[in-house]
Amino acid sequence: MVVKLSGHLSTPSHVELIAEYANIIRELWVRGVRLSVVVGGGDTAREYISAARTLGGDETTLDRIGAMVARLNAMLLISALPVIAYPKPPENLEEFLEAHATGKIVVSGGFQPGQSTTAVSALIAESMRADILVNLTTVDAVYTEDPAVKPGAKPLTKITISELEEILMKNIDYRAGKYKLMDPLSIMIVKRSGIPLVIADGRKPENLIKIAEGRIPGTLVVPDIESEDR
Amino acid sequence: MVVKLSGHLSTPSHVELIAEYANIIRELWVRGVRLSVVVGGGDTAREYISAARTLGGDETTLDRIGAMVARLNAMLLISALPVIAYPKPPENLEEFLEAHATGKIVVSGGFQPGQSTTAVSALIAESMRADILVNLTTVDAVYTEDPAVKPGAKPLTKITISELEEILMKNIDYRAGKYKLMDPLSIMIVKRSGIPLVIADGRKPENLIKIAEGRIPGTLVVPDIESEDR
Amino acid sequence: MVVKLSGHLSTPSHVELIAEYANIIRELWVRGVRLSVVVGGGDTAREYISAARTLGGDETTLDRIGAMVARLNAMLLISALPVIAYPKPPENLEEFLEAHATGKIVVSGGFQPGQSTTAVSALIAESMRADILVNLTTVDAVYTEDPAVKPGAKPLTKITISELEEILMKNIDYRAGKYKLMDPLSIMIVKRSGIPLVIADGRKPENLIKIAEGRIPGTLVVPDIESEDR
Amino acid sequence: MVVKLSGHLSTPSHVELIAEYANIIRELWVRGVRLSVVVGGGDTAREYISAARTLGGDETTLDRIGAMVARLNAMLLISALPVIAYPKPPENLEEFLEAHATGKIVVSGGFQPGQSTTAVSALIAESMRADILVNLTTVDAVYTEDPAVKPGAKPLTKITISELEEILMKNIDYRAGKYKLMDPLSIMIVKRSGIPLVIADGRKPENLIKIAEGRIPGTLVVPDIESEDR
Amino acid sequence: MVVKLSGHLSTPSHVELIAEYANIIRELWVRGVRLSVVVGGGDTAREYISAARTLGGDETTLDRIGAMVARLNAMLLISALPVIAYPKPPENLEEFLEAHATGKIVVSGGFQPGQSTTAVSALIAESMRADILVNLTTVDAVYTEDPAVKPGAKPLTKITISELEEILMKNIDYRAGKYKLMDPLSIMIVKRSGIPLVIADGRKPENLIKIAEGRIPGTLVVPDIESEDR
Amino acid sequence: MVVKLSGHLSTPSHVELIAEYANIIRELWVRGVRLSVVVGGGDTAREYISAARTLGGDETTLDRIGAMVARLNAMLLISALPVIAYPKPPENLEEFLEAHATGKIVVSGGFQPGQSTTAVSALIAESMRADILVNLTTVDAVYTEDPAVKPGAKPLTKITISELEEILMKNIDYRAGKYKLMDPLSIMIVKRSGIPLVIADGRKPENLIKIAEGRIPGTLVVPDIESEDR
Repeated sequence: MVVKLSGHLSTPSHVELIAEYANIIRELWVRGVRLSVVVGGGDTAREYISAARTLGGDETTLDRIGAMVARLNAMLLISALPVIAYPKPPENLEEFLEAHATGKIVVSGGFQPGQSTTAVSALIAESMRADILVNLTTVDAVYTEDPAVKPGAKPLTKITISELEEILMKNIDYRAGKYKLMDPLSIMIVKRSGIPLVIADGRKPENLIKIAEGRIPGTLVVPDIESEDR
Repeated sequence: MVVKLSGHLSTPSHVELIAEYANIIRELWVRGVRLSVVVGGGDTAREYISAARTLGGDETTLDRIGAMVARLNAMLLISALPVIAYPKPPENLEEFLEAHATGKIVVSGGFQPGQSTTAVSALIAESMRADILVNLTTVDAVYTEDPAVKPGAKPLTKITISELEEILMKNIDYRAGKYKLMDPLSIMIVKRSGIPLVIADGRKPENLIKIAEGRIPGTLVVPDIESEDR
Repeated sequence: MVVKLSGHLSTPSHVELIAEYANIIRELWVRGVRLSVVVGGGDTAREYISAARTLGGDETTLDRIGAMVARLNAMLLISALPVIAYPKPPENLEEFLEAHATGKIVVSGGFQPGQSTTAVSALIAESMRADILVNLTTVDAVYTEDPAVKPGAKPLTKITISELEEILMKNIDYRAGKYKLMDPLSIMIVKRSGIPLVIADGRKPENLIKIAEGRIPGTLVVPDIESEDR
Repeated sequence: MVVKLSGHLSTPSHVELIAEYANIIRELWVRGVRLSVVVGGGDTAREYISAARTLGGDETTLDRIGAMVARLNAMLLISALPVIAYPKPPENLEEFLEAHATGKIVVSGGFQPGQSTTAVSALIAESMRADILVNLTTVDAVYTEDPAVKPGAKPLTKITISELEEILMKNIDYRAGKYKLMDPLSIMIVKRSGIPLVIADGRKPENLIKIAEGRIPGTLVVPDIESEDR
Repeated sequence: MVVKLSGHLSTPSHVELIAEYANIIRELWVRGVRLSVVVGGGDTAREYISAARTLGGDETTLDRIGAMVARLNAMLLISALPVIAYPKPPENLEEFLEAHATGKIVVSGGFQPGQSTTAVSALIAESMRADILVNLTTVDAVYTEDPAVKPGAKPLTKITISELEEILMKNIDYRAGKYKLMDPLSIMIVKRSGIPLVIADGRKPENLIKIAEGRIPGTLVVPDIESEDR
Repeated sequence: MVVKLSGHLSTPSHVELIAEYANIIRELWVRGVRLSVVVGGGDTAREYISAARTLGGDETTLDRIGAMVARLNAMLLISALPVIAYPKPPENLEEFLEAHATGKIVVSGGFQPGQSTTAVSALIAESMRADILVNLTTVDAVYTEDPAVKPGAKPLTKITISELEEILMKNIDYRAGKYKLMDPLSIMIVKRSGIPLVIADGRKPENLIKIAEGRIPGTLVVPDIESEDR
């Protein structure tokens, strides 16, 4: 299982939430659930990227800064998981694979420019041959439309990855630090890998336990092939 | 200037063409043109990716193999540019930046899974603050429609990046080794960086000299902002 | 010349100050002043270290987090110095030396646990055989006593390193993120290297120009041997 | 056990054979046989080295290209051994040792200029303290003379390493990509390490099972000391 | 358990002692004692540092040479611990943590300039969350005063870290290769980590077994807090 | 020009000689002679390899120790060449090439197991496309026979590489630390590269100046092709 934790929930201001996740991850580890975690950059990333843009940094450098902040956030979770977590967030997929080979829980942040941390989680899931990718974010599910705009939008319990793509790819801003829930690259990797994806509310850590036990909160995103015999 | 040379033109079967490019690059170097080159994986990549897929490799591993083959192709050009070329193709953007800091010509192949070599060239152009990105490929220009299908399709001399996006993003196959001329990630990076892009016929090495001298063969793709006052 | 910029002045909330320093550094570079810069972790470091401590992180891990934040701050200055700055903050002295060998301006943050960023600046000055180490901080000089406590404390214009040691080493808190102006290790390295040290007010960027021109604001700390024939 | 698989059998055109080897290796792994595999560069190496030589590459660069192709071939076997194979072929002995310390099956290609992949396999056997080195090649045994030239040449079932040296060291071409069955460096390492060597027909994967079970096809090459009390 | 073995006992002239330690470490490993070892530079370090100083080397370079010699000494112990020791001494704390994650016994030498090998052992103990740090040196205990000077000095069986600090920090020479039993940085790290420290005679390898069995030869140095309720 | 300095002349007991070489190298550097230096392991290597062998180290590990000692010796020369020498001896050819790309003087020691430091110097000469390889050793020339055994042996002023091979390859001991003047691998690389080789007395540093000025002391070893028209 690969767990992506939104950057909005990974910075120092969410230290209690991170502590809860650490407890759950330790618990799952003891139960034999093999997992890997990816965290986002959140407000700290936005703050540093904004400053670097003011200073004239190019977009590639801004992406690198965002990835570095996400790795910094990863260190918080690593601090809370002595012995069982790999001590260092990897800086690219090769380093992830080497760390993963030790059998420890690898906590990653960002990798390379042009890749959101969600894309990182999808690549990790693919290379680990994970059974499921869990995207813990700040919405409780995927909706038929943007619920902030359309009050009548309905949460979806099960959709295909292509259906998700249609919903999400309408409004994308490519500038660094502005990646949406699932950017095109992330969708592309989830699609080609055929790994089921869960999008659930990360503000409720108990959701992670539920998912590990097969009870899916939020939205289950299935591969396109499976959708045919739904 | 960042030059992307199509993988179709970078493998051992194009050794004479590579030799011609080496001569031109040496010549431009002496004239003071600061450039960086990226080559693709071509037929060798396709052959290895196909074998690895047969063996059960996951898509991330296939992408890594494709990137590795492109680096192998990069070694051919490096062989032909002693003293002035950096001796090793970088494996990610950080390594590229470190190599570039020495002042040598860096010849790159692929970087990381999920990124085509064209995306690599766009990231490099952005981080080098290049004045132009040149995509030397196996077509002589961007056409209004696919000339293989529509005989009446017309070559375009100047379009905006958004116009290119519309033309190209219709038919994309995301599986490893199947990236088209410009995949969405490459378009996204070119777009956000605002760097002019030339798409020209790489089978004619003299095109590179022309471009260095400001005469644009093929299609010039300009940033969206510039298009407004065209 | 090695310039240490206090972490209190290196975070995104001081973006205008960082921009001013970038201009001055570029100006000095053009004048032929060969320099290297080290920045501290500041408030961001304190925030992350505090969170990691709450999560149960050991002091070594907290030190690593502090060093990582300082490197993140270094990226801001790097963003503002394209072409002339080395693209990546080194993670240890070996990496610094390799980066420095390219002839670019290396902007460093923290290196290793047990070393403050001030100690890093002293090691860099020693290994670069710098003519001077400049510590730009949030006080305008070294005082005879702590001016916050003793209103009658007087600023010192010139003292020996041993005199500085006596003044500073009285009250040190060794926990991560609590290093004072000059910790014992920094003093030790400055002492053994015999490099003159200037402690000046970093809130006034013009101080850096003054120092480059030989006009010393704040306090000049000279090696012990020189003090004998003062 | 260290298994060297000839480059002639490691390229994409031998994908079925590689698949068979992957199955056998997985099977042996489950039985508790701790092994490490080294593959050669084969036709792809020859093709790239030839192109690089045409382009003016020096012999050291050609050797590096050969080693890189062998690592590319190693990726094919890695693709077929998810979870149990280390994800990346090492680039030198230090990296091999680090990878081996994780307990995974390390699949290597070439290391450094001046070393054939057979020499790599001998160094790995020595450093792993392997009980046996198996050289799976395209001949079924060592012969008294070159069977291509002398039709009456007889296969040998057991010889000493010095006897092998005498037979093989007569005709060696040192240019890159032209290493013979066992180059002098490989012989030297096998000799000093005292590890038994089997030379057998790699076109028959079942030979590997036989060897693991103690039934030696082809030629067993024993240390010189053992030969005395034969 | 982290064991620091004095450089005076780690060079080739103490090969029998090293062999005894290797046997004890192997024995403890089998009993399930998880340990990590750090060795010093000793006479070889002194010899190389002295030569480098004559040649005009700066103190940072001398420190790097001292750390390198300690890593060379570490290779002797690694030679004697095949299979169970990690094959390479780490060059900094990050590398140590990565090596430690494999579960092998990591044998370290020096890390970075400004840090003695004793400081390295303290950082490792802290980051491993070791239960005890054992400093095997060439005195049999900490004395009330320097026994070489004051014949009536008495050995101490139990003191606090602050008491040790008072005794030791009186006479420190900071030049490379001149670190005393416990330099200030080492004391600082032991203090902040709260890990018990044993200082015992390393010339008697059986002392290590005693300590592993809870019988403390030499001096036990307890954290300051514990001292209050002694 | 690549200069190999015998390990017998590179250890701390030859500090005055090393200082003389540092002066000459600095002088040649100023004159515009682009050179790279390789030093051997000498007595320190022998001492450590002997201890490691006693401790049960395998031959690959002994080779690694020998290479590490040679790198330690390289640090002495680096200490004496601030600013113009690359700060770190490379650990393999790839690292050498990266260091060399900065334009600094790279001082190397050993690289990888199975390669003597002389083989390292030959690989470096080949990859740098050096005009000459200078082997400064403890004999004043190559003799017709071993002068220690045959008093009537005559020094040779000019021979071909194949003639040298015949003279030297008679008596080789392959165990670690026992490589002779020119081992087979070194001969092979010199042969294939076609670079002229000078074997001269390294105890007389002025020989290096002579060679730089085209006056050859000792023996000049020319490529085989040249010998034909002698």
